[in-house]
Amino acid sequence: MIAAQITPQDRQLPLVVINPNSTVAVTDGIDAAMEPFRQVPDSPEIHCFTLAEGPPGVESQQHVEQVVSPLLSLIEQHQGYASAFVIACYSDPGLHAAREVSAAPVFGIAECGLQTALLLGDRFGVISIKQTSIPRHMRMVRALGMESRCAGDRAIDLSVEELSDKNRTYARMRQVGAELRDRDSADVLVMGCAGMARYRDHLSAELSIPIVEPTQAAVALALGLSRLPWFRKIG
Amino acid sequence: MIAAQITPQDRQLPLVVINPNSTVAVTDGIDAAMEPFRQVPDSPEIHCFTLAEGPPGVESQQHVEQVVSPLLSLIEQHQGYASAFVIACYSDPGLHAAREVSAAPVFGIAECGLQTALLLGDRFGVISIKQTSIPRHMRMVRALGMESRCAGDRAIDLSVEELSDKNRTYARMRQVGAELRDRDSADVLVMGCAGMARYRDHLSAELSIPIVEPTQAAVALALGLSRLPWFRKIG
Amino acid sequence: MIAAQITPQDRQLPLVVINPNSTVAVTDGIDAAMEPFRQVPDSPEIHCFTLAEGPPGVESQQHVEQVVSPLLSLIEQHQGYASAFVIACYSDPGLHAAREVSAAPVFGIAECGLQTALLLGDRFGVISIKQTSIPRHMRMVRALGMESRCAGDRAIDLSVEELSDKNRTYARMRQVGAELRDRDSADVLVMGCAGMARYRDHLSAELSIPIVEPTQAAVALALGLSRLPWFRKIG
Amino acid sequence: MIAAQITPQDRQLPLVVINPNSTVAVTDGIDAAMEPFRQVPDSPEIHCFTLAEGPPGVESQQHVEQVVSPLLSLIEQHQGYASAFVIACYSDPGLHAAREVSAAPVFGIAECGLQTALLLGDRFGVISIKQTSIPRHMRMVRALGMESRCAGDRAIDLSVEELSDKNRTYARMRQVGAELRDRDSADVLVMGCAGMARYRDHLSAELSIPIVEPTQAAVALALGLSRLPWFRKIG
Amino acid sequence: MIAAQITPQDRQLPLVVINPNSTVAVTDGIDAAMEPFRQVPDSPEIHCFTLAEGPPGVESQQHVEQVVSPLLSLIEQHQGYASAFVIACYSDPGLHAAREVSAAPVFGIAECGLQTALLLGDRFGVISIKQTSIPRHMRMVRALGMESRCAGDRAIDLSVEELSDKNRTYARMRQVGAELRDRDSADVLVMGCAGMARYRDHLSAELSIPIVEPTQAAVALALGLSRLPWFRKIG
Amino acid sequence: MIAAQITPQDRQLPLVVINPNSTVAVTDGIDAAMEPFRQVPDSPEIHCFTLAEGPPGVESQQHVEQVVSPLLSLIEQHQGYASAFVIACYSDPGLHAAREVSAAPVFGIAECGLQTALLLGDRFGVISIKQTSIPRHMRMVRALGMESRCAGDRAIDLSVEELSDKNRTYARMRQVGAELRDRDSADVLVMGCAGMARYRDHLSAELSIPIVEPTQAAVALALGLSRLPWFRKIG
Repeated sequence: MIAAQITPQDRQLPLVVINPNSTVAVTDGIDAAMEPFRQVPDSPEIHCFTLAEGPPGVESQQHVEQVVSPLLSLIEQHQGYASAFVIACYSDPGLHAAREVSAAPVFGIAECGLQTALLLGDRFGVISIKQTSIPRHMRMVRALGMESRCAGDRAIDLSVEELSDKNRTYARMRQVGAELRDRDSADVLVMGCAGMARYRDHLSAELSIPIVEPTQAAVALALGLSRLPWFRKIG
Repeated sequence: MIAAQITPQDRQLPLVVINPNSTVAVTDGIDAAMEPFRQVPDSPEIHCFTLAEGPPGVESQQHVEQVVSPLLSLIEQHQGYASAFVIACYSDPGLHAAREVSAAPVFGIAECGLQTALLLGDRFGVISIKQTSIPRHMRMVRALGMESRCAGDRAIDLSVEELSDKNRTYARMRQVGAELRDRDSADVLVMGCAGMARYRDHLSAELSIPIVEPTQAAVALALGLSRLPWFRKIG
Repeated sequence: MIAAQITPQDRQLPLVVINPNSTVAVTDGIDAAMEPFRQVPDSPEIHCFTLAEGPPGVESQQHVEQVVSPLLSLIEQHQGYASAFVIACYSDPGLHAAREVSAAPVFGIAECGLQTALLLGDRFGVISIKQTSIPRHMRMVRALGMESRCAGDRAIDLSVEELSDKNRTYARMRQVGAELRDRDSADVLVMGCAGMARYRDHLSAELSIPIVEPTQAAVALALGLSRLPWFRKIG
Repeated sequence: MIAAQITPQDRQLPLVVINPNSTVAVTDGIDAAMEPFRQVPDSPEIHCFTLAEGPPGVESQQHVEQVVSPLLSLIEQHQGYASAFVIACYSDPGLHAAREVSAAPVFGIAECGLQTALLLGDRFGVISIKQTSIPRHMRMVRALGMESRCAGDRAIDLSVEELSDKNRTYARMRQVGAELRDRDSADVLVMGCAGMARYRDHLSAELSIPIVEPTQAAVALALGLSRLPWFRKIG
Repeated sequence: MIAAQITPQDRQLPLVVINPNSTVAVTDGIDAAMEPFRQVPDSPEIHCFTLAEGPPGVESQQHVEQVVSPLLSLIEQHQGYASAFVIACYSDPGLHAAREVSAAPVFGIAECGLQTALLLGDRFGVISIKQTSIPRHMRMVRALGMESRCAGDRAIDLSVEELSDKNRTYARMRQVGAELRDRDSADVLVMGCAGMARYRDHLSAELSIPIVEPTQAAVALALGLSRLPWFRKIG
Repeated sequence: MIAAQITPQDRQLPLVVINPNSTVAVTDGIDAAMEPFRQVPDSPEIHCFTLAEGPPGVESQQHVEQVVSPLLSLIEQHQGYASAFVIACYSDPGLHAAREVSAAPVFGIAECGLQTALLLGDRFGVISIKQTSIPRHMRMVRALGMESRCAGDRAIDLSVEELSDKNRTYARMRQVGAELRDRDSADVLVMGCAGMARYRDHLSAELSIPIVEPTQAAVALALGLSRLPWFRKIG
């Protein structure tokens, strides 16, 4: 088969993944996590964007709100150039508004990460960064109607400085993950942040529990579902 | 790029879709519905199997139970030859047992169809064939924890003879779909049977509502998620 | 008693009600609905603001998102001058972010309207303007954890032009309200829009069912709860 | 403005708060907790009654049942003299019957305390006196449809003698409150008894968590909502 | 086997069924409905009592409350003479208090009728007498945690006079039952009143749906479970 | 009364209890647990069967699936000779299929055990053998719609060898039961296995909590409900 023979109908447009915070290192981590999808020949390209207008991290409801407008602009600008969009922040900022503005389907990593967890286990636990994010996550879990399958959401609750210490961060994730598993009876975990991908394999092996990296989960769903003409289009 | 250069790690094993009833025409319909996935160059092959030991249609809990054993045998026999399995019956027979026996991930079309519906709308309605299947479906919806997003499940309730009349079948689907939309407030529909795919486009256009064809939904999820090494494997 | 003797501790700061759309007529209607509270001697003043930056009406998730930033600015500007804020739009835009930025408590008319309905009846029905708003409302109802007491949400679904015809609007509200009561078994209704106040009394009398005007409900809760030093302040 | 000019329509009738147990000290504590409302000039009077026929404390379902009849009598006797009634016992005894007999609105401190908690946090924990009261509380939480926002209900479970030791009582409340916060993930607490008001400020400060004193919450709602002619009256 | 050889341990004490309203005709109907249990040789005796202090019918929350005290007295008086008590009113008045006062187990016909319905179908519908009773029933359904299996509760809403016309009563029950089955998707019905037993067989046959007569259901459970020493006794 | 005078209509057919695993010692334990029912004169006989085709224990979803076919055969063979069937495995294998094939009612010990627990307490905890069974149990709890009354499900998780040590087994059950009671707030426990009956009395006394032995519970319900002609028969 020769690539040049592939017509536009056959070949998907690139998938656009948007990191709504302005920290390029987080985008780089997301980009690295796309590797399994890129090993596939002729797979659609995956482009990872940093939202320059975003805060360094999305840590409050205010942060969630302030990224929506530039995020929607970015999505509008890429209409026709993307087969799908993935919003790579565990608060799924602007998800429903983005679905209004975009002809291509839009996926949120929280919604997709949680759906993927439900395929892997019975009750999920979420490892969050900040204690203050948990109410926001729980509103989302209930809005999604998934509360009867939520074992808990617990935070590592480290400061920005402490988070720069990878060993300490990992140690807290292991501790919180074990609590979710043993105390709260979770049998699958979800990483409650797009920037935790690097810890996934080791943590899953040490805790002997499946762990969902939500950006990968969302991209997987996006790659599959965006093949279907009827996904997000009536008729 | 030259196909011969693709190493086994790069190239996915085929996806195996199993129709647990013995009606080859249903399998043929499923096979035809795989077309959107096959248009993609170098996409994994999709093999559709008919379970010879199954009943002509899965219409009762007894039918659900009796297909499990041959279904598990078929899955066990294909270990190592499939990247993922899709059980193409809206009762998801043997799904959790299949996950125990299979190293490759296993997807049920009801679970995946419903998850896909949740990405397209707020409350789903299910169009079923038989009135007597609805309690079975509702047990599944509650087991999945999705009841707060279920608008309703209504049956076209035609006899086998009547089902052979495509116009009549379609007319009942339109009627039931409109009831789910208008009376029960569904804003997305799921076809509650693997054999309804042919009616999807026309019905969605006429009712102006997104409609999920569940085998396509399950294959989409399977193609995407089976790329991820951690999906169904700890560590 | 002489007003001048009232010390600041005794006298509450004004309550600020914000209409997040830019239609002054809606704000005027809200202002008129404040009458019962103003009849009380020495009651705190109630100031109704129009959000100039808002759309003429909040009819989509995009509208919800776009009003948040100017709404938060307005709230921040009035810190110290308001005893409480009421966001007078049935989508409660920016409510949780506003609670982060404001030292004074912030009330949303949807949350308060629904809570008030739960004090008046067993299962509430919501009369919405637009069909497309219903999924947004349902996400909110589930996020609030009130879904088991929600009988339904139905829209009058009139165009802007049709809405200017008050008789027609009322007729549709009566029709939809009767459906919520008779078909969906609601025993209390909530007006799903800040601009429906004028119809409340007549509609409640004709349908023989209690009806909550949500801005009045929110102001009532705000006037009461903002008296309590511990409301929104720890310790 | 001169008080004599205030017509009956302008001026609210007194609010009647009923302590359904016969312990006058509890009523005195409730009365003291009304202070924030009394600082407001021209605010309606708040009269606190002790139900002489009640038990020393409402500690069982039998106690709940036995106070209903004298409570309803008291409410009936005060028709026309009260703008609203508050039943100041965390089991909300007779609440729905009282709403049948009373033209003025009736508020229960459990229902109002829980609603207020939902405005302050995402998941509430209840500090109860007796372990045996918890099933009764949980029936109420579910009847209210609030179970998805209930983090837990834990008892200090002290004997009457031990309860007279304020230091010991406070220490147990702090311990139980910390468990609700840390183990059960509550982010707001509700005092599960009308007699705990004195401990609220200190406990909230020490545990760094908002705490609802339910009688104050109910009175706040009553003062606000009873202004609205349509509250509890159709049309 | 000779009856005289049966020791007290072998032979159960009588079962006491209490009709909490004062209408002897209702008690007679309940007594007639006990026939299937009496056909069994050596079955415990079933004694049906009328609560003289009750209202002619329990039609409001006030009625529910006012029967509790005499009901508890009656139960206390029969301690040691009854193997179990059944409260034969669909509002289960005083059930939890009765469990506190009684050493023998106490069963409510609503709780038992609903549990029995869950063994016969997937979603139950309740046929009630009065529209005003439905909120009371729904509070109970939610308190029992059964709301996800409740299809609906609809009232025949006839006056006392109309109820004396058996044909008219039956016609309304058939109409309401058909609505519950067809519109609300119930696949099992529960009679929401102890006085409807006479209509059960005919209605079930005409509507082709299982129907639970709740007093019979409660007595069935009582006869079975009261055999178990551990039922209601720890250790 | 003379036994010879009892006509077939008066006398119930035997009750058939089926142990779906092949371990005769488990069936013997079940048979011993039937003693309280056999002490009643003229009570229906209770026959306990071992399913020879079953695995030594039902410990996985595969085991659940593989016992269904022989279980249904056994039930079909006994049509006309049994008044009711009880499936004595806590996974309720084949329950809904059995209800399709059997004219006599069929009871599952999990469904009946849980219903009985709801009559004895507010929130139940389940003591399971295997950690891996918990997701299966939770799917069942949600399918039954009982999740809001489930405090938790915890496993003793001993190997087959360890289970043969009765002291060790009991010690783990006490430990797990205490966790369910104290940490998860269960106020009634259910034994999550048909083979735990021997430990019930001692464990309930030591933990001071009611404990449901589910096979006894199911037989109690079966004995009572199978008296009613309408149970499982329409009309």
